[in-house]
Amino acid sequence: MKAIDLADKLSRFSEQWAPKIIAQMNDYHLKLAKIEGEFVWHSHPEADEVFYVIDGAMVLQLRDGNIELEAGQLYVVPRGIEHNPLAEEECHIMLIEPAGTVNTGDASGERTSKAEEWI
Amino acid sequence: MKAIDLADKLSRFSEQWAPKIIAQMNDYHLKLAKIEGEFVWHSHPEADEVFYVIDGAMVLQLRDGNIELEAGQLYVVPRGIEHNPLAEEECHIMLIEPAGTVNTGDASGERTSKAEEWI
Repeated sequence: MKAIDLADKLSRFSEQWAPKIIAQMNDYHLKLAKIEGEFVWHSHPEADEVFYVIDGAMVLQLRDGNIELEAGQLYVVPRGIEHNPLAEEECHIMLIEPAGTVNTGDASGERTSKAEEWI
Repeated sequence: MKAIDLADKLSRFSEQWAPKIIAQMNDYHLKLAKIEGEFVWHSHPEADEVFYVIDGAMVLQLRDGNIELEAGQLYVVPRGIEHNPLAEEECHIMLIEPAGTVNTGDASGERTSKAEEWI
């Protein structure tokens, strides 16, 4: 029964594009991820997804344009909207989405994070 | 279609204990609040609630003990668990909870925020 410290949790892993669960709220998970480079185009047909930048900067590429996000900024990608995260340098983010949401959504492949771990 | 900047949103209101909605994710709201002093003991029988500290420090008083939270830390208060937020100096927080969650939960009173505004 103690606070969840984002910096502490981030210090415990280095793997990129592999979200780690830090908390559950009802049937949602809060996850931390380290990202660098470009991910893959995908969407989550059933679920909106929050991207919140903790450190660094990233771009949420959408088919209609780019959303630039810096530390302290967030964006909600609506369900069904194709997106492709991109970070020129390593960026640390928090994701909020329904438990069981797969990182690659409808575009499975080598980037799919199979078993999401708690950290 | 642009990033939601927490600092910018916080600069737009000064009222304490009056959460402002900044985003919707599925049937959840992300809200910002400024708090100072002690709130009221209450619980949300149906909903877990995330407290994330953006600036400053606060204490989540629970019947079993206190959770101290500083900037960059969060805690999920489980549904049905009585809690009473406290901040010695003004603290800025983000709340994540089901849309329609009332700030005072099962303990309505003068602290109840009637109409939650978007900001």
